Amino acid sequence: MRATVMYGAGDVRVEDVPDAALREPTDAVVRVLRSCICGSDLWPYGSMPASEHGQRMGHEFLGVVADTGAEVPGLRAGDLVVAPFVWADNTCDFCREGLQTSCRHGGLWGHDLDGGQGEAVRVPQAQGTLVKLPSGIGADSPLLPSLLTLSDVFCTGHHAAVTAGVGPRTTVTVIGDGAVGLCAVLAARRLGAERIALMGRHKERTDLGREFGAAEVIAERGAEGIERIRELTGGDGTHAVLECVGTREAIETALGAVRDGGVVSRVGAPQYSEVPMDFGTLMRNITLTGGVAPARAYIEELLPDVLGGTIEPGLVFDRTVGLEEVPDGYRAMASREALKVLIRP
Amino acid sequence: MRATVMYGAGDVRVEDVPDAALREPTDAVVRVLRSCICGSDLWPYGSMPASEHGQRMGHEFLGVVADTGAEVPGLRAGDLVVAPFVWADNTCDFCREGLQTSCRHGGLWGHDLDGGQGEAVRVPQAQGTLVKLPSGIGADSPLLPSLLTLSDVFCTGHHAAVTAGVGPRTTVTVIGDGAVGLCAVLAARRLGAERIALMGRHKERTDLGREFGAAEVIAERGAEGIERIRELTGGDGTHAVLECVGTREAIETALGAVRDGGVVSRVGAPQYSEVPMDFGTLMRNITLTGGVAPARAYIEELLPDVLGGTIEPGLVFDRTVGLEEVPDGYRAMASREALKVLIRP
Repeated sequence: MRATVMYGAGDVRVEDVPDAALREPTDAVVRVLRSCICGSDLWPYGSMPASEHGQRMGHEFLGVVADTGAEVPGLRAGDLVVAPFVWADNTCDFCREGLQTSCRHGGLWGHDLDGGQGEAVRVPQAQGTLVKLPSGIGADSPLLPSLLTLSDVFCTGHHAAVTAGVGPRTTVTVIGDGAVGLCAVLAARRLGAERIALMGRHKERTDLGREFGAAEVIAERGAEGIERIRELTGGDGTHAVLECVGTREAIETALGAVRDGGVVSRVGAPQYSEVPMDFGTLMRNITLTGGVAPARAYIEELLPDVLGGTIEPGLVFDRTVGLEEVPDGYRAMASREALKVLIRP
Repeated sequence: MRATVMYGAGDVRVEDVPDAALREPTDAVVRVLRSCICGSDLWPYGSMPASEHGQRMGHEFLGVVADTGAEVPGLRAGDLVVAPFVWADNTCDFCREGLQTSCRHGGLWGHDLDGGQGEAVRVPQAQGTLVKLPSGIGADSPLLPSLLTLSDVFCTGHHAAVTAGVGPRTTVTVIGDGAVGLCAVLAARRLGAERIALMGRHKERTDLGREFGAAEVIAERGAEGIERIRELTGGDGTHAVLECVGTREAIETALGAVRDGGVVSRVGAPQYSEVPMDFGTLMRNITLTGGVAPARAYIEELLPDVLGGTIEPGLVFDRTVGLEEVPDGYRAMASREALKVLIRP
């Protein structure tokens, strides 16, 4: 079968790889209907050292079950399923607590597993990992892009909002107008946020942010960005700041824009190792939370709103490519020509 | 009147100062019955640059109302009151949210105000700040030390436990066997913690920690201390870590000892400006919370347990001095001869 392999920074290839096949009785094989490129894929795309064997890519996909092992009683060939970006047994203590990203028998896609950016995927712990979608959704359904966002990007935005405690009396700053930031806006609105400010400077993206529920768009960054948030909030800052970038500047801005007693939630992969949580943040009772999103914990809850059309997170996809064009998809996302690239293998 | 003034590192004097007197209609004057020295007083005691005018000291006290301004309807001369370590109007939006430490009309003792380590204190925003204690508690009541801990140290331990989400299914590590750490143990037990481990190496203190509810005492620090916590928890770490020291080593230990999805709550005044919340803590969904404790928000809730004798946080006091002996009290605490020094002016 064909699949995407990254061999180093800027070097993404679509190649023949061994066909996905059952190996454990807990496996399923899923034929990929839709996949996509994640903002986090751009970090290795920018910096991965050259590798002889390469790295299979893609951790967001939905597709049709092709085969199941003996210990996957809940699925059968033909089922439409969505896969969270971390696989998990969904039965261990961490999973039962809703932290499937720390599952005792789970892990990440790629490495020695198939990735989502290919024709098919062997899914370990398939019974726990995969979420079956209602029958009747066709292979060309316009719902597929939004359903695909339940793999990662919308759940990640939702995780930022949930861990920050966003609710009807919460003012929110979202830092970053990438797909995660826009999904965080949508998630915060869905949770009833009182008012949402989006920090970003790419008009076509912030326009979608407004559509998703941002009342203000702030192009300034750093100290000026903090100042603008403070102006909008009578000097106080917002109750919640959802940090969806991952740079040191973004986390500093977040800590400066948050109200006393407030929460900074971070879901961007941190490109820093230290956070300036000094005496001042202690006096102000600031909480830093968030993390890698346990998408599996959220899919069932978010699914009805996607199916019903109340929310349409799939609008973050602004380009669609076939599998052979994936390298160009990476190039387009890395150069910011595309916000988020959908793959139709 | 006599009061404590710090003039620099190691230089604490008890001196004649202007009598405490009403200045604003919202003031009260309180004659101090009990006060104490705080672990946080030891930071300037160790490092304050020499000052000509000095700094009034003490932010924990209880006493008897001597005089009230016209806008203090709830108090009258003779009332026994306890003062939280931050004064506050208790009516602004932050106060109504239980964050009196960020009150819009509040502040800290000392500076241009009286401190608690003196004969009397002018209390600003007295109606909001002071909590009236039941009548019938005499000036020599054995309850006074425990009631005094509601000013700061027990509420600070309680804040660590509350912000960390401690409850019946929570395993807890408390870092630090100072008075705050011991109060954090007691607070965690009071909130029903499943199991509490106390990290400390001073036997007489950790013995009190056991009495307060710690099931294990861990003398090791740093990587070894983390290893011991992991051994006790099947490799996982504890759900909550209450960091009651404030050093860089302590916060690093806290982040190493916490379970995936868990919470580190810090209440020790940070002697660091950066926290190592890197990619690993993101993958593990670690939350960092805590801060300066809004004692005012907790006093009414904790009072019945102190009055009823269910908890006796006053056991953290292991030495009592008169006002003139306060400098020796500082010396004893700084040299770790005394855990916490009670002052009877």
